[in-house]
Amino acid sequence: MGNCCESMGNFFGRQKNTNVRVSLPAVCFVWQIAMVVLFGVFIRYDDESDAHWAETKLHENITSDVENDFYYRYPSFQDVHVMIFVGFGFLMTFLKRYSFSAVGFNFLIAAFGIQWALLMQGWFHSLDPNTGTIKIGIENLINADFCCAASLIAYGALLGKVSPVQLMVVTLFGVTLFAVEEYIILDLLHCRDAGGSMVIHAFGGYYGLAISWVLYRPNLHQSKRLNGSVYHSDLFAMIGTLFLWMFWPSFNSAIANHGDGQHRAAINTYITLTSSVLTTVAISSMSQKRGKLDMVHIQNATLAGGVAMGASAELMIMPYGALIVGFCCGIISTFGYLYVTPFLEKYLKIQDTCGIHNLHAVPGMLGGFVAAIVSASASVSVYSKEGLNSIFEEVASGKRSVNTQGGYQAAGTCVAIAFGLVGGAIVGFILRFPIWGDPADDNCFDDEVYWEVPEDEETIPPVLEYNNHMIHKHQEISESNFSVEQT
Amino acid sequence: MGNCCESMGNFFGRQKNTNVRVSLPAVCFVWQIAMVVLFGVFIRYDDESDAHWAETKLHENITSDVENDFYYRYPSFQDVHVMIFVGFGFLMTFLKRYSFSAVGFNFLIAAFGIQWALLMQGWFHSLDPNTGTIKIGIENLINADFCCAASLIAYGALLGKVSPVQLMVVTLFGVTLFAVEEYIILDLLHCRDAGGSMVIHAFGGYYGLAISWVLYRPNLHQSKRLNGSVYHSDLFAMIGTLFLWMFWPSFNSAIANHGDGQHRAAINTYITLTSSVLTTVAISSMSQKRGKLDMVHIQNATLAGGVAMGASAELMIMPYGALIVGFCCGIISTFGYLYVTPFLEKYLKIQDTCGIHNLHAVPGMLGGFVAAIVSASASVSVYSKEGLNSIFEEVASGKRSVNTQGGYQAAGTCVAIAFGLVGGAIVGFILRFPIWGDPADDNCFDDEVYWEVPEDEETIPPVLEYNNHMIHKHQEISESNFSVEQT
Amino acid sequence: MGNCCESMGNFFGRQKNTNVRVSLPAVCFVWQIAMVVLFGVFIRYDDESDAHWAETKLHENITSDVENDFYYRYPSFQDVHVMIFVGFGFLMTFLKRYSFSAVGFNFLIAAFGIQWALLMQGWFHSLDPNTGTIKIGIENLINADFCCAASLIAYGALLGKVSPVQLMVVTLFGVTLFAVEEYIILDLLHCRDAGGSMVIHAFGGYYGLAISWVLYRPNLHQSKRLNGSVYHSDLFAMIGTLFLWMFWPSFNSAIANHGDGQHRAAINTYITLTSSVLTTVAISSMSQKRGKLDMVHIQNATLAGGVAMGASAELMIMPYGALIVGFCCGIISTFGYLYVTPFLEKYLKIQDTCGIHNLHAVPGMLGGFVAAIVSASASVSVYSKEGLNSIFEEVASGKRSVNTQGGYQAAGTCVAIAFGLVGGAIVGFILRFPIWGDPADDNCFDDEVYWEVPEDEETIPPVLEYNNHMIHKHQEISESNFSVEQT
Repeated sequence: MGNCCESMGNFFGRQKNTNVRVSLPAVCFVWQIAMVVLFGVFIRYDDESDAHWAETKLHENITSDVENDFYYRYPSFQDVHVMIFVGFGFLMTFLKRYSFSAVGFNFLIAAFGIQWALLMQGWFHSLDPNTGTIKIGIENLINADFCCAASLIAYGALLGKVSPVQLMVVTLFGVTLFAVEEYIILDLLHCRDAGGSMVIHAFGGYYGLAISWVLYRPNLHQSKRLNGSVYHSDLFAMIGTLFLWMFWPSFNSAIANHGDGQHRAAINTYITLTSSVLTTVAISSMSQKRGKLDMVHIQNATLAGGVAMGASAELMIMPYGALIVGFCCGIISTFGYLYVTPFLEKYLKIQDTCGIHNLHAVPGMLGGFVAAIVSASASVSVYSKEGLNSIFEEVASGKRSVNTQGGYQAAGTCVAIAFGLVGGAIVGFILRFPIWGDPADDNCFDDEVYWEVPEDEETIPPVLEYNNHMIHKHQEISESNFSVEQT
Repeated sequence: MGNCCESMGNFFGRQKNTNVRVSLPAVCFVWQIAMVVLFGVFIRYDDESDAHWAETKLHENITSDVENDFYYRYPSFQDVHVMIFVGFGFLMTFLKRYSFSAVGFNFLIAAFGIQWALLMQGWFHSLDPNTGTIKIGIENLINADFCCAASLIAYGALLGKVSPVQLMVVTLFGVTLFAVEEYIILDLLHCRDAGGSMVIHAFGGYYGLAISWVLYRPNLHQSKRLNGSVYHSDLFAMIGTLFLWMFWPSFNSAIANHGDGQHRAAINTYITLTSSVLTTVAISSMSQKRGKLDMVHIQNATLAGGVAMGASAELMIMPYGALIVGFCCGIISTFGYLYVTPFLEKYLKIQDTCGIHNLHAVPGMLGGFVAAIVSASASVSVYSKEGLNSIFEEVASGKRSVNTQGGYQAAGTCVAIAFGLVGGAIVGFILRFPIWGDPADDNCFDDEVYWEVPEDEETIPPVLEYNNHMIHKHQEISESNFSVEQT
Repeated sequence: MGNCCESMGNFFGRQKNTNVRVSLPAVCFVWQIAMVVLFGVFIRYDDESDAHWAETKLHENITSDVENDFYYRYPSFQDVHVMIFVGFGFLMTFLKRYSFSAVGFNFLIAAFGIQWALLMQGWFHSLDPNTGTIKIGIENLINADFCCAASLIAYGALLGKVSPVQLMVVTLFGVTLFAVEEYIILDLLHCRDAGGSMVIHAFGGYYGLAISWVLYRPNLHQSKRLNGSVYHSDLFAMIGTLFLWMFWPSFNSAIANHGDGQHRAAINTYITLTSSVLTTVAISSMSQKRGKLDMVHIQNATLAGGVAMGASAELMIMPYGALIVGFCCGIISTFGYLYVTPFLEKYLKIQDTCGIHNLHAVPGMLGGFVAAIVSASASVSVYSKEGLNSIFEEVASGKRSVNTQGGYQAAGTCVAIAFGLVGGAIVGFILRFPIWGDPADDNCFDDEVYWEVPEDEETIPPVLEYNNHMIHKHQEISESNFSVEQT
């Protein structure tokens, strides 16, 4: 049946060559070799991961090994790592015959993106001016995971419609753009964005939407039969959803300040996510005949609160504030899946397979503005002088008023969106060259194009009937070939 | 086929209205808004998560950020969080067509229960007498997760037979009852129960059984065709089993005392669980023709040791004591699945879908009594004076003998069971009002009632046959409609 | 159909008795009771998990509970625990009808192996000379998990061809041999092997291959119909792959030195794994028609870098060194799956179901030699005097040159391989006794032999057709019985 499908795919999509036997290995090898060379030139261990740490401890009067940043951040790092590979990967397995690509290409591009992100972010943030090298530690690993996340979000919009080679290009440019916009937003505009509402989600969301807009496929309905879920694929997707949902407190607190910063970020995110679940269920149930719930909403919109809390998680937004953010985002995101995604496809020609518009782009943008409001209402009485200094340095040092800080936060959000839209449009045009091996319109959402797919589940014959079965199977194939010719 | 099933469901269960399009959104919205208001009035950050922490550190002479309770408990918290959402959720996915409800409603009620638990437990345990507010930190989040667990356990007995609206009611009362019994057992009786053998498992187990008893369905056999597993649903359930099993050491140590308390609780639980696995396999194999293993036993009884070790995990039960507890509980729990669950259903009219009697109720009760025995044999030579003081304050201060402490532990177990049985009976009667949208007897264990369910797996046609297939499908449906009329 | 299969299995494999109803419970009970007795005699809490810790703290002038080793190692321990039970368990679920055995027997033998490992490793490493007891803490739990891993790796070669009783024997001897070779390599030869490239992977790999060689089944092709994957079984296996991949940094850093040791081990492993993914994808794509990827490669070869980095993870191998190791191992491992596994089966009579030769044996061996090279190039300028002392004690104390240390590392690798090959051959011969209940050649890779397997997925009939369906089903069975007789 595999061969049969494939030959029919060729029959109809003859103009498209999905053979990546040269391009995919070439891209992987060339880029990986480049990484080896660049790592050799630039990347070194930082003070806390170098074998000289024992001397550093003496020198800096550190009394205990537990003061090594590793112990502050490693548990959160591992949670973030699970979100990137299992969370994002399995969230996209909902399609009935695209689960290999969902989880497999997610794996590939995250593994590449991490390496490139260590370099790009290193040049901007961790360059040692004396030696010209990048010193990495646990925080760099977390940031590299974060940086990839933006490209993985973009993959959500493109799911089923692009080749692995195109995804490598999306990631190469996505990581590069990310490092630049992050530098502008965090280092030049001095915005706060511990959980990346702006720099990760708003950027990644609009980046993916812009690419998808440029790659619009007017005849995508030809693959409609595969653009949906089956019972167990929806359950696999729930693995992704739940690991994202559970570990989001770690995502938003992973690089927050030691002590109360990480503690508060985790609490706020935990709280906001619970209310997203309830409002998502409410809107999903209201929208369907007999109050039935839709798995698409439960898989996605329940996470919207975590996205929106990214920039404010470490701020004194208060537990009820966190509840309100989650409340609103659950509603907005579910409405997005119900009305905005179909609207985008029909009128704006944006085909957004996973609905990243509703889960990342809009909640990320809202999160940026929420943080602007919360920042603008900061005060010494709420934060204490020390607390304000550790979060809003520019405010505490008198360079800015809190209102100005709020304005900068809002400006940062706009920068992220602009980078996403413009960068995505450019990358989209690059991806339109007919050299990348993307599938034909009637061949989308199908693992057969890029994977050796095993036979189907139902055909596990008992031992004696196996030979008979093989005969039947050949008959079936000849029949279906026959029907092809008939048509 | 979806429509077909549904119409047939209506045909037979005409008296039952499973439409929750008004009630489910109403409950979600009203309760979530109530949460926002109550959080606004009551919930604040505690000293360690507030931005004033820098000042608190100075004031209390704390030298390092790593002394923030966040770093002592956050890794365990995340493990517990995984147990609540993935562990409990996926453990219940074993039914062939109820996996959406298993994992989805578990998600919904845990997300609601957490919020209500923060309030209820806060009023009893974390109320600041000066301000009248509840100060929350990482330990409150863990306790909120624990508190939900009792209601999720109760869901196990009700699985497949109740509506999501009923589950919200079960959780509202479950969390409320939990907070009261926990206050009585831990604060008034001064029992020790770090892992919640009594307060979580015995209470939750008997709560669910009592509800199930009141909601007895004499004609449940009409849904028998769906009350079983298929190959892959059993495998999904193993995801739940394993995450519960692996992270149980974190569950039992999450709120134990810093230092040796957490360390010992993790070791004891780790050890006890290993022996449960071996005795479960032994009994399961002995009970079946040709020594074949039963997935139901492996999925559940292997966890019984962790339940029973809850109350004693932080005590000096010694590694061999932990092994013995796991040894016995594996046997008892497996025998429960073989003989007690059918007995309960036939003679006591208790339909216990997941067998929570064998996994939670009985091992939880046993765990309470084991802790009573271990407490009664405590001594200064085993615990040291400091150690005894940190665990059995009442004993160390001379207010109680160790024997009295043992008696109180046993009494606490009885309180938990009584709360479960009485509370469950009352909640059961509330749930019998015909307004909650529960399914008819021939409609149980079926996701179709509350979810938009995608088409089945086998119907993924190759590209050209899709149109033919659609025709066939319509024919099938008309045929099956025909057969309905014929009957 | 279950009965049908079984009877046919008996028909053909009449000489094999797969009934384990006596042997499996007997082994479980006898061994578990032995564990209780031995734990009672030998195992006690160590200083940091005993209730006397408060006194120990005073005595040893420890100022903070956070200095308890629990807080340094517990997060890594839980990650390792997930790798052992979910990682190894689900990695082997790829077979279409052997997933219950993959995850279930993995569970059984790991639970037994952990207990035996606590004793065996305890006698060699943690014996208190004054009391003759073994003092256990968190590090012992991690080491016990590590010790099991070797036997679980061996299971990978035997998957589908052995009974659970045989696996218990494999584990009993596997753990015993492990403890001895580990003692020789780490304590007598003073090798460094934090992540167990030699002691876990090389030993476990060759142990499994040697057993598989002795148990060679010339007629295994009779089970060929079941020796493959289906779509969703491949997806379950990806759960195993990803949890292994994500948590490998914890595996290699779990028992490394506090501070920079753990920090560096995590970074090196993180980096090495990313490059394995890219080269695996490249070779997999190059090897197939139209550049299609093979799930077998993605599931396994992507992990090879982590295996090879085990012994060098805590060393100053430098980030680019880690990239190069991952680069090479991804290529070597994928080539192994393409060419070496078929070669081993055809010419060396080694049937290696999961390809542990390519994922564990060879990368483990290479990892041992990489560590030899890195050790031989160690210097005070790279490590600092303190750093060198904490890693290469023998070198820092002047007893050895770095070159000698490198030689010892290489010798250690050879010891591990020799133990695996010789031990495996002996255990293989023990397993050939016809008393263990292993399946006949045409009955391999089939859960039906040892598990009660539920009906297939496709047969979920709508409510009204259920009775008709049952009639059809009986007909089917009689027909297939008929066909048996016909043949």
